[in-house]
Amino acid sequence: MKKAKKNLKAAILIIGNEVLSGRTQDLNVSFISKWLNINCGISVDEVRIIPDNQKRIISNILDLSDKFNYVFTTGGIGPTHDDITSLSIAKAFKIKYEVNKEAYSILEKYYGLKNFNEARKKMAKMPKGCQLILNPSSAAPGFKIKNVFILPGVPSIIKSMIVNTKKYLVKGSTTYSKSFYLKTVESTIALELEKIQNKFLKKVDIGSYPFFKNGKVGVCIVASSVFIKEIKLCDKHITHMAHTKKISLQKN
Amino acid sequence: MKKAKKNLKAAILIIGNEVLSGRTQDLNVSFISKWLNINCGISVDEVRIIPDNQKRIISNILDLSDKFNYVFTTGGIGPTHDDITSLSIAKAFKIKYEVNKEAYSILEKYYGLKNFNEARKKMAKMPKGCQLILNPSSAAPGFKIKNVFILPGVPSIIKSMIVNTKKYLVKGSTTYSKSFYLKTVESTIALELEKIQNKFLKKVDIGSYPFFKNGKVGVCIVASSVFIKEIKLCDKHITHMAHTKKISLQKN
Repeated sequence: MKKAKKNLKAAILIIGNEVLSGRTQDLNVSFISKWLNINCGISVDEVRIIPDNQKRIISNILDLSDKFNYVFTTGGIGPTHDDITSLSIAKAFKIKYEVNKEAYSILEKYYGLKNFNEARKKMAKMPKGCQLILNPSSAAPGFKIKNVFILPGVPSIIKSMIVNTKKYLVKGSTTYSKSFYLKTVESTIALELEKIQNKFLKKVDIGSYPFFKNGKVGVCIVASSVFIKEIKLCDKHITHMAHTKKISLQKN
Repeated sequence: MKKAKKNLKAAILIIGNEVLSGRTQDLNVSFISKWLNINCGISVDEVRIIPDNQKRIISNILDLSDKFNYVFTTGGIGPTHDDITSLSIAKAFKIKYEVNKEAYSILEKYYGLKNFNEARKKMAKMPKGCQLILNPSSAAPGFKIKNVFILPGVPSIIKSMIVNTKKYLVKGSTTYSKSFYLKTVESTIALELEKIQNKFLKKVDIGSYPFFKNGKVGVCIVASSVFIKEIKLCDKHITHMAHTKKISLQKN
């Protein structure tokens, strides 16, 4: 990976009617977001889910690639008629949509000459000049064009190939986080928590999330920052607050 | 519900750093989308996930409420400092942010005078003139303002209160769908499937989704339409294709 740079932000564009309709539960946002933060110091700052529709793909790609350092798309690069992501990306950037020789050769080897039919050949068509993202799981590569990374929709395939995006990414600052589980309700600690947040303004981001599990009620506080020292200082304040209010506290 | 109207489209705006970071797996999109389609004939046509940031909430609310018939937001209406959705919505529409008397009274009854502290009182502050969405699970109401429905983030609470949005919604056309599970790979059926899609253009939407489960590979075809008769006709074509190609087929 190239030299570190601060505050790199990415967007994820999920392309798929099946996710919008609720038929398919998206699992890619959570995986890609964690992977980018831990491995590349890049934080996901917006996600959009849109239908398999050329106009919508084009307008969203242009908007997101302009606003964010990187864009990751998932879905719509298979062999069927509803797979229109690659063509739409080429149209968005006004780049020729053509057979990528390297991708063609990878697919031809994988399927064998006899089984390399027209539908499979479609998966070798990409915007001219793109760079491949190799797919060790089912051969059909994703690709990178400008600051956009085109990935398939199946979570297990994304998991196997995302490491191959790393060489194209510039490393940003890792966001560290620490979670505090308090046996209380949000309103009991809200005012003190706000004071702590104000002490660490712009240095630590403090989130508060109520949880209900196995009949127990609690609050999970998450402190996130690119400065690990500030999180440690913040930890002291949260621990002190819990102690003063006699609230049982677990950390991880 | 009011009289039926065709082609009603909604957007969902998920507000929450915890979803963007991957710490929390969103489960609300799938639930809200299915509920709206089955119960109200409204299809979700775009989803966005954004951080707890006032500027971003304002710009996204204005954009989505202009583009779609309805917008549903989740998250950010609790008692802590990071709960800024209600204030941001008021600012977006340039409406006064004030104590809603009905909400105040509900919360006061629920907590009792003694426990109705400042943090909890914050949950009664809403844009002036909004209509409440009652919450049978944890009292704190959501609200409707213009075409925007403000809901909390916790999935179990949304499930308990979404029925209370129904009276504010106009009923659209239900989208029906039928799924076909074929023991094959996408590229084997891609060309025939495209021909079937072209036959039913603008009447039936045909999606093709590969799956890998318990070592088995298959393709799930989903035919969706507001015309149930067209799905039945489409079913005949898909069944005939499977039969001709000697592919084992299951439907549901």
